[in-house]
Amino acid sequence: MTTAGTQDCIPKQGDALLVVDVQNDFLPGGSLAVPQGDDVVPALNLYCAAFRTRNLPIFASRDWHPSNHCSFADQGGPWPPHCVAETDGAQFASGLDLSETVIISKATEPESDAYSAFENTDLDARLKQAHIKRLFVGGLATDYCVLNTVRDAIRLNYSVVLLEDAIRAVNLQVDDGSKAIKEMLELGCQSDSIESVSLTAPEAPTVLTDLYQLAMLKAYHDQGMNQTAVFEFYIRNLPAPRNFLMAAGLEQVLEYLETLQFSQQERDWLKTSGRFPAEFVDALKDFRFTGDIDALPEGTVFFANEPLIRITAPLPQAQLAESRIINILQMQTLAASKAARMVLTAPGKTLLDFGLRRAHGAEAGLFVARASYLAGFNGSATVPAEPFYGVPVFGTMAHSYIQAHHDEAAAFRDFAHSWPDNTIFLLDTYDTAQAAHKVVALARDLKKEGISINGVRLDSGDLAQLAKQVRSILDDGGLKDTRIFASGNLDEYALEQLIAQQAPIDGFGIGTRLAVSEDAPTLECVYKMQEYDGQPRRKRSEDKATWPGKKQVFRTFDAQGKMQEDHLAMEDESPPGEALLKPFMRQGKRLNPPVPLEQLRTQATHQLDQLPKALRSLKPASAYPVHISQKIRELANRLDQESL
Amino acid sequence: MTTAGTQDCIPKQGDALLVVDVQNDFLPGGSLAVPQGDDVVPALNLYCAAFRTRNLPIFASRDWHPSNHCSFADQGGPWPPHCVAETDGAQFASGLDLSETVIISKATEPESDAYSAFENTDLDARLKQAHIKRLFVGGLATDYCVLNTVRDAIRLNYSVVLLEDAIRAVNLQVDDGSKAIKEMLELGCQSDSIESVSLTAPEAPTVLTDLYQLAMLKAYHDQGMNQTAVFEFYIRNLPAPRNFLMAAGLEQVLEYLETLQFSQQERDWLKTSGRFPAEFVDALKDFRFTGDIDALPEGTVFFANEPLIRITAPLPQAQLAESRIINILQMQTLAASKAARMVLTAPGKTLLDFGLRRAHGAEAGLFVARASYLAGFNGSATVPAEPFYGVPVFGTMAHSYIQAHHDEAAAFRDFAHSWPDNTIFLLDTYDTAQAAHKVVALARDLKKEGISINGVRLDSGDLAQLAKQVRSILDDGGLKDTRIFASGNLDEYALEQLIAQQAPIDGFGIGTRLAVSEDAPTLECVYKMQEYDGQPRRKRSEDKATWPGKKQVFRTFDAQGKMQEDHLAMEDESPPGEALLKPFMRQGKRLNPPVPLEQLRTQATHQLDQLPKALRSLKPASAYPVHISQKIRELANRLDQESL
Repeated sequence: MTTAGTQDCIPKQGDALLVVDVQNDFLPGGSLAVPQGDDVVPALNLYCAAFRTRNLPIFASRDWHPSNHCSFADQGGPWPPHCVAETDGAQFASGLDLSETVIISKATEPESDAYSAFENTDLDARLKQAHIKRLFVGGLATDYCVLNTVRDAIRLNYSVVLLEDAIRAVNLQVDDGSKAIKEMLELGCQSDSIESVSLTAPEAPTVLTDLYQLAMLKAYHDQGMNQTAVFEFYIRNLPAPRNFLMAAGLEQVLEYLETLQFSQQERDWLKTSGRFPAEFVDALKDFRFTGDIDALPEGTVFFANEPLIRITAPLPQAQLAESRIINILQMQTLAASKAARMVLTAPGKTLLDFGLRRAHGAEAGLFVARASYLAGFNGSATVPAEPFYGVPVFGTMAHSYIQAHHDEAAAFRDFAHSWPDNTIFLLDTYDTAQAAHKVVALARDLKKEGISINGVRLDSGDLAQLAKQVRSILDDGGLKDTRIFASGNLDEYALEQLIAQQAPIDGFGIGTRLAVSEDAPTLECVYKMQEYDGQPRRKRSEDKATWPGKKQVFRTFDAQGKMQEDHLAMEDESPPGEALLKPFMRQGKRLNPPVPLEQLRTQATHQLDQLPKALRSLKPASAYPVHISQKIRELANRLDQESL
Repeated sequence: MTTAGTQDCIPKQGDALLVVDVQNDFLPGGSLAVPQGDDVVPALNLYCAAFRTRNLPIFASRDWHPSNHCSFADQGGPWPPHCVAETDGAQFASGLDLSETVIISKATEPESDAYSAFENTDLDARLKQAHIKRLFVGGLATDYCVLNTVRDAIRLNYSVVLLEDAIRAVNLQVDDGSKAIKEMLELGCQSDSIESVSLTAPEAPTVLTDLYQLAMLKAYHDQGMNQTAVFEFYIRNLPAPRNFLMAAGLEQVLEYLETLQFSQQERDWLKTSGRFPAEFVDALKDFRFTGDIDALPEGTVFFANEPLIRITAPLPQAQLAESRIINILQMQTLAASKAARMVLTAPGKTLLDFGLRRAHGAEAGLFVARASYLAGFNGSATVPAEPFYGVPVFGTMAHSYIQAHHDEAAAFRDFAHSWPDNTIFLLDTYDTAQAAHKVVALARDLKKEGISINGVRLDSGDLAQLAKQVRSILDDGGLKDTRIFASGNLDEYALEQLIAQQAPIDGFGIGTRLAVSEDAPTLECVYKMQEYDGQPRRKRSEDKATWPGKKQVFRTFDAQGKMQEDHLAMEDESPPGEALLKPFMRQGKRLNPPVPLEQLRTQATHQLDQLPKALRSLKPASAYPVHISQKIRELANRLDQESL
């Protein structure tokens, strides 16, 4: 999104996409070519795909002129003949995927012209019929047909999202396009760009749960048990090597809950599995999440016993969602918490996630990229983390690239020619110091071509010693601005050592030990029922007893703004401090649009700033004080007494 | 699949689905109802979805009679009037999703009847036009229109897969249906059932890779480097707590490689990302995997330095695939190896995977279910592991189910009524011994209803002590056949202890410590170039040097059939022993259809039987001998010398 992050430009029910006049005659080579007009095609394809995926309608307008149209120069009009009906020039751009699209033809009569897709067409009627309230508009040209279409749309009371990366201007006057955009924004258009709707993370199937959840669902169904339950997700004890944890994954939980439904295919499979009666499976057709979510915002620092999320929903819904909620929150919280330790250990250093390959499967790789960026990393090597989450991604070369060349220096040179702005060379395939000398020699040649060497990477050996040696070779060779990156089995402990040794390393690629949170690959996390049908509940299993009731976390800060102590209390108590659990969803609907990851990252940085010094250390600190309120203790005692 | 596992019933290019006459008049309530005719609808929907997903054609035939059709009783025919064109009775079943389907109408003239969908229709011509060689056939009724359609299909030289769970018979004579099926199988039909084509695991996007792979791809593209490369994936050192590893994940790697292509949406995104020139991205349109795969069959026991998989392919293909291949193979190998230790430790016990919630994301949960079953587990709680992989799934109740009831005994009773064949009660929500007594009391009442109690589960406390106590309560109560299951922070070490204590526990649910392979959550695994353009390659980084060349693993066995020693040699050497790497793919095509997981599991069990005693122990054993051949060592030396 190019504008303020609080906007909600994710296509949803009531939205339609309108592609304006992306026809051959308006593309380079056409009779009325818009400069770079073909640039809109891949962008519009992504928007189209995003709308089709969500079953939202797409409309495409086209000029569809008679051969004697009044706008043509030979008829006294301003334009060369273009988009004559049925001719090649009037066809939509060949690369544009307009499957499942409604075509709107305009200016089809000799005597009337129409820049706007609304002019003398049934577009407005069709949109109203489909209950469309908001139009996403892209196409050609910004300063004519797009502008006039948007003017009409606003006049007709549609909200408009202008797809700024999917429009191009004729620019008869050099600033016609920018003037048109300015006018459209002043008319009240939102502005959007492709990141918000492009490739999206695959959704897990709704049947991705434990079978016992479905078994219980059937029992609840048989018994008519559909009252409101309260479940809380929390960590029983911090893993030994952690002084704090950082909450992450809420956004994916909210996405899961708001789209939760059994597809036709899943219901068909459940029927054919032979376990469930058809009547029960048919009832799942209307199964949706209609409950409330209160949670710690992502990036919040938290401790044992403090709920990360509280679900208040009809029992079957809260029950079914358990497995996937834990599956999402544990992994992202593990990764964010581990990454946060590295961020604290290596201030001012560039930190990149290199963990995909040794993460536990596809989603783990993506979650690590997202959670580590949230915690303050600078980016990831995992490509889809960019379109899915907005994580900046980075990458240059592997050893195999060097090995595939007969000569290391030639490998560097070729790479520089392919990627003149992304010249980071891997030095340790054969001999690191020798490779550094080759870089110095190469730099002289490349300089003549205007290419400078951004950096080098070390991936094995004694990194501190090698970095010092390489730094001095580079400096002696005049490459003082060439940065040194390091990777290879790094974690916060290795970073601490390298920094203590004053290794001249500017950035680190962190892989395996981050990706699996190696020193604490799991959290003792649970999702427990605290209340059903208005009655508090308590599980009393040995060593696994729960604190009953609907709870809130209150946090106080000292004069310097550092965290002081937390109180775990009943929701209706008022101990001192700020209430940390915030409302995110009511009756299955989000209260606010998703917060951009960038903004969550800023909040997370602020949270780390508030950490007391002892907790920032890699050494185990005494536990941060979390007080359980008297009222909770009394309730637990009462429930235990009642049940004896 | 209901028949031998070597069949290949996965729909692919050249296959079409034919849905025969699933019309209202043939469904219960219709004028010529087939008993349970509506049972075919959910099954056919799954087949349709499987064909649509793969862009394979679907045909649906229908009787489309005139009102005076010769088959009607009032015209002297055998049947009541049915499927009169345009009437409700002639419509397809309302729940049947026939979108994107070609409709074939038959018996449309008064004087000619047609049971077969080929009779007087253009079906054969349309199939030939679409180059269809094999038909998947389901619908109504087995003993009339399905039978006659299949007879014609065979006569017309189509292969036929009969969808046995998507047909139903009229059975005027009680065995008409089974006779018809017998005839069709004798005619050469394969038989299939829904498991093979139903819900399938989501594919990761092709851009799920590290950005440097794409950066190198562009450099290779610019430099025309497209020669054949050989990469091998192996583990540098076994993790300390492991005496052996078990190979797993190859099937998912093969699926990934055979479907590898950049979608339009991915290419559009790559263009809009601003990193790559359009010309390079356009060239990715035809990017496919066309290489060879040799690998250890899944379930094979292996050791350090032994390649799990060898990729021989044009450099860019082998390069791009690196990240995802490691991502798949490491996780599944970790899980299979951990699970195998439990299988060895607890012979005769039921072992179930309960790991989804604390696995690292969705795919990790699925991979753990698959890999643990491969290694000898009896099943999983993770629902989609059944449709995706054929893993049996199990599940009953959680503590929250008990907590939601006011009374524990009532919770048990209600559950037994909902699940009379799946009565396994969780005992430890409040007090385990008390709960066991409640079960005994309940059993008497349930017995009158013909319900017996299959088992109980303990999830906390001293499991050995509690199991003994519960066993004696159950035995005293006459429930000697009621089994005891246990779960809660279990792993192979805990199993070993419980078994040493002779805890009377029949089965175990294993969660977290399996799901993240807690004592070894990662493998020191690498994917390294061994050869490019016919020349062997060697990386010499400190502590990370590789053995060069294209290699094979040879294994010898002692007189008792136990593994004796392995030789890592060049592919063209012939040390003693069996060659373990087998060919799986040539020029991008599989040499054989996928091996069913059940069969892989049998092979894995056999592998564990071959393990020498010392390696079966949970205690670290001396390393199994893996000899590096003289020829490999000489090659490594030569390469090192040449490069000095």
